[in-house]
Amino acid sequence: MTNGKNRQYVLAARPQGPAKRSDFKLIEADIPSISDGQVLFRNTMFSIDPYQRNLMGNGSSEWPTIALGDPMGGPTVAVVEESKHPDFNVGDPVQTWSGWQDFATSDGPDIRKLDPEEAPLSTALGPLGLNGFSAWYGMTKVHTFKPGGTLVVTGAAGSVGSIAAQLGKLRGLRVVGIAGGAKKVAFLREDLGLDDAIDYRAHNFADRVRRALPDGIDAFFENVGGPIFPVLMEHFNRDAKMTICGTISDYSETELPKGINYLPRLITLIHYRFVDIKAFATPYVMDTMPEFLAEMTPLVKQGKVKYREEFIDGFAKLPEAMMSLFDGTHSGKKLIVRAD
Amino acid sequence: MTNGKNRQYVLAARPQGPAKRSDFKLIEADIPSISDGQVLFRNTMFSIDPYQRNLMGNGSSEWPTIALGDPMGGPTVAVVEESKHPDFNVGDPVQTWSGWQDFATSDGPDIRKLDPEEAPLSTALGPLGLNGFSAWYGMTKVHTFKPGGTLVVTGAAGSVGSIAAQLGKLRGLRVVGIAGGAKKVAFLREDLGLDDAIDYRAHNFADRVRRALPDGIDAFFENVGGPIFPVLMEHFNRDAKMTICGTISDYSETELPKGINYLPRLITLIHYRFVDIKAFATPYVMDTMPEFLAEMTPLVKQGKVKYREEFIDGFAKLPEAMMSLFDGTHSGKKLIVRAD
Repeated sequence: MTNGKNRQYVLAARPQGPAKRSDFKLIEADIPSISDGQVLFRNTMFSIDPYQRNLMGNGSSEWPTIALGDPMGGPTVAVVEESKHPDFNVGDPVQTWSGWQDFATSDGPDIRKLDPEEAPLSTALGPLGLNGFSAWYGMTKVHTFKPGGTLVVTGAAGSVGSIAAQLGKLRGLRVVGIAGGAKKVAFLREDLGLDDAIDYRAHNFADRVRRALPDGIDAFFENVGGPIFPVLMEHFNRDAKMTICGTISDYSETELPKGINYLPRLITLIHYRFVDIKAFATPYVMDTMPEFLAEMTPLVKQGKVKYREEFIDGFAKLPEAMMSLFDGTHSGKKLIVRAD
Repeated sequence: MTNGKNRQYVLAARPQGPAKRSDFKLIEADIPSISDGQVLFRNTMFSIDPYQRNLMGNGSSEWPTIALGDPMGGPTVAVVEESKHPDFNVGDPVQTWSGWQDFATSDGPDIRKLDPEEAPLSTALGPLGLNGFSAWYGMTKVHTFKPGGTLVVTGAAGSVGSIAAQLGKLRGLRVVGIAGGAKKVAFLREDLGLDDAIDYRAHNFADRVRRALPDGIDAFFENVGGPIFPVLMEHFNRDAKMTICGTISDYSETELPKGINYLPRLITLIHYRFVDIKAFATPYVMDTMPEFLAEMTPLVKQGKVKYREEFIDGFAKLPEAMMSLFDGTHSGKKLIVRAD
C-alpha cells in the first residue's frame, strides 16, 4: 500500500558478486507532481530480469550503471493516475521504464500505451516486452538463420530463450535447448516442442551435447555463458552464426575463472570455421519495436508463441525476486512482482 | 642441382608441437612428363610462410593437411621448361603452388604468368603474392576501416603484417605495430613510419600498450594470437573491428594453455562493445586477386609499400628455413629459398 508516499527501492551499495539484500534500501519519497505535458503513473507490475544485475555495477557490463541512491531500474506496467498530456488519460495502462518505485512521471515518449484487449497487460513485460523483443531482434536482425539448420539456445527455458527457441522452430530450424534441471528440460520438449533439450547440470553433458548435435551447430542464441560454452562451441559448423543476447552466468563474476584458457580455441574456431559472433543491445535498436510488435502480437494472441509467468505479490518482494534469478532456484518462468 | 631427378621434400611425419627436421624427408623422383595442354616447370624460388606449419597437421588448423609422403606444399616461382599449352612458352616465369619439389606439371589454371618488368619475380611470393593478398584482403574486404581510427597490427614486421600496417597508413589510420625485439620495432618506426611500435617481449608490455593506445583500438589485424591478445583486447573501442589473418603463436600448440580463462572476457567485450571479429581464408577468395594486383602492383613499383626479403640458397635448406619462423630467430623479412 502506498499510504500517500512513493516507495522506492534504491541502490544502497554496488554488489560484489551476486546481489544481496543489503544492496537495496527501501525509502519513502513524496509522490511527484506533474506540469503541463506530463503524466503521473502508478506502477502495478515490475519486470524481474537478469540484466538488472548489470545496472547495479561491478558486474560484467560496460553499460552505465544506476547511481547509488537512485531507484533500481527496469520495465514496469503502470496505470495513468493524472494526465496533463493530450495522448494519455487517467486509467490508461502503459508500459514504462521507471524501475522500482510506486509512482513516477513521464513526458510521454518513454512510455507505451497498452491495449488490454490485445493481450494480457503482463505480456508487455515478457513476450511483448523487452524479453520478446530481445529474442526477436537477436533471431531476426542480428543474424538471419537459414531453415533446416540446427539452432542451439542456452537458457532456453527462460523468458528470452524460450521465445528465441520458439521463433527458431517457426523459422524452420531444428532447435536444441539447453537448460538447468529436469523440469525445464521437460518443458522444452513437451510444451515448446523443441527437437531436443539438454540439462547442463547432467554429469554427461558433453556426451549428451554430442548426441544432440549430429549435424553440428549452425545458429547459436546465447543467454548464459560460463563453463558450458566451451563444450558447445566445439560443435560450431563452418559459417556458424552466434548471437550474444546475454551471459547471465558471468554477470556476477568479479574475476575471471582459472583453469584451461579457452580463448585461443575460440579464436581458432572463428579463424578456421568462420564463426560469426555478434552482439546487440536493445536500447540502440528500439526503432524496430513496431516491426517486432507487428510480428509477435498475433503469434502470442494465437498461442503460437507460448510464455510462462510467475507472479509474486508485494512491492517488498522486489529484491528477493531478483536475487532468485541467480541462485539457481528460479523456475525459468517470467518473473513479475505485483504492487500491493 | 637437380641431376636429372626431381628432388622433393615430402612429409615424413606429422609434427607434435613445432616442426622438426625429421618431419621432412628428401627423396628423388623422376621428372614428370607432360601431355597435351600441360606445362612442365622448374621451381626457382620457394616461399616460406607460417601457415605451412598447418599443412603438416596436428596444429591449430582445421584445413586439409598434406598426405604423408606427399611433397610439402606452398607457393613457388618457377620457369617453364617444356610446354604443350598454348598460353605458356619455354622460359616463361610463373608463380605456382607446387610446393617443395624441383619439377612439377600444370594444366594452366593454377599457375600465373609473371612479368619481370613489372616487379622482381620474388615479389610474386611476397607483397604481390599470398602475403600481400592476405594483408590486402583482410584490410579491404573483410572489414572497412574508417580513416582517423587506430589500427593495431600484430606480427607487424612480418611479411603479411608489414603490408597490412602500410595499407593502414595509406588509408589514413593511426597505426600501432606489435613485434618481437628492438630491431623489428625500429624497422616499424623508422622504415615503415608507423605511429608507434611496441616490443611484445618488453617486461612492461601492458603499460606500453596503454600509453600507445590513448584512444583505444578501432581496428585490429591479427597475425599472432597467444598471450599478448588478452592484453590488447582490453583496449577495444565500441564497434572495434578485428580481422583474423593468422595466429602463428598457436599453430604449433598441441594443448590449450592453462591459467586465467580469458574466454568469458572476450565474450563480454563482444557483448558490450560490439567488437566484430571476422576471419577469412585466401583459397575461398582468389577471385579478388586481380583487384588486389591492380591496387598493389603500382604501390610496390612506386615504393609506397615497402617489403624486405631474405634469400637462403639451396633446396636442402627448405626445412631449416621453415623451422626458423617458429623459434624466434627469424628477422621478420620475407623468407625465400632459392633452388640450387
